[in-house]
Amino acid sequence: MSNVYDIAYDLEKALRSSSDFQELKKMYDEVNANEDTKKLFEEFRDLQLGLQQKQMTGQEITEEEVQQAQSVFQSVQENETISKLMAAEQRMSMIVAEMNKIITKPLEELYGPMVNN
Amino acid sequence: MSNVYDIAYDLEKALRSSSDFQELKKMYDEVNANEDTKKLFEEFRDLQLGLQQKQMTGQEITEEEVQQAQSVFQSVQENETISKLMAAEQRMSMIVAEMNKIITKPLEELYGPMVNN
Ligand SMILES: [Ca+2]
Ligand SMILES: [Ca+2]
Repeated sequence: MSNVYDIAYDLEKALRSSSDFQELKKMYDEVNANEDTKKLFEEFRDLQLGLQQKQMTGQEITEEEVQQAQSVFQSVQENETISKLMAAEQRMSMIVAEMNKIITKPLEELYGPMVNN
Repeated sequence: MSNVYDIAYDLEKALRSSSDFQELKKMYDEVNANEDTKKLFEEFRDLQLGLQQKQMTGQEITEEEVQQAQSVFQSVQENETISKLMAAEQRMSMIVAEMNKIITKPLEELYGPMVNN
């Protein structure tokens, strides 16, 4: 049986050369190649992060912030390049989540029966 | 290049047959084979989980709870079988964390440069 690290590095290489990752990279580069698109995407990211942090620390989100978020989100949805990037991001994070689920299965099987008895 | 899922399943198999996982399984079975040890370990887990949940939801942890936790933790540390299980758990979760770090490297490299400019 190969070393787990060797296989993990093989998996990294396979993920890196997968069409899903290549598409993500392509859309990421396209978004960043256009100054306006890049700026809009960064504004959206910063806004998202800011609201998440406020939520996690229990700070109030103002009416203005909600409206600003809605307006930026609408611009983002209307931008085809960013929409494609976000779709590619979602596919990629789903794949990574599935990889994690597969490799934590042995642990889950070991500890699973402990929970309910 | 092989399919990422095939490689992920190979990695799962390699993790399952690794000496680290086999040791974890062995210690887990040993802990559960003795009724007293099993009970003590479960008491420790429940206590740990309960305190974690209280912390996350911002509930106060009482003096009695702190003392109870210290007493159970001392018993756990004095129990060689449980100590070995906990050491094996730590090694295994370190390995899984390293696997996750390796397979998320492509994403990290893609998004890394975005953060600071
Ligand atoms: Ca149990
Ligand atoms: Ca930037």
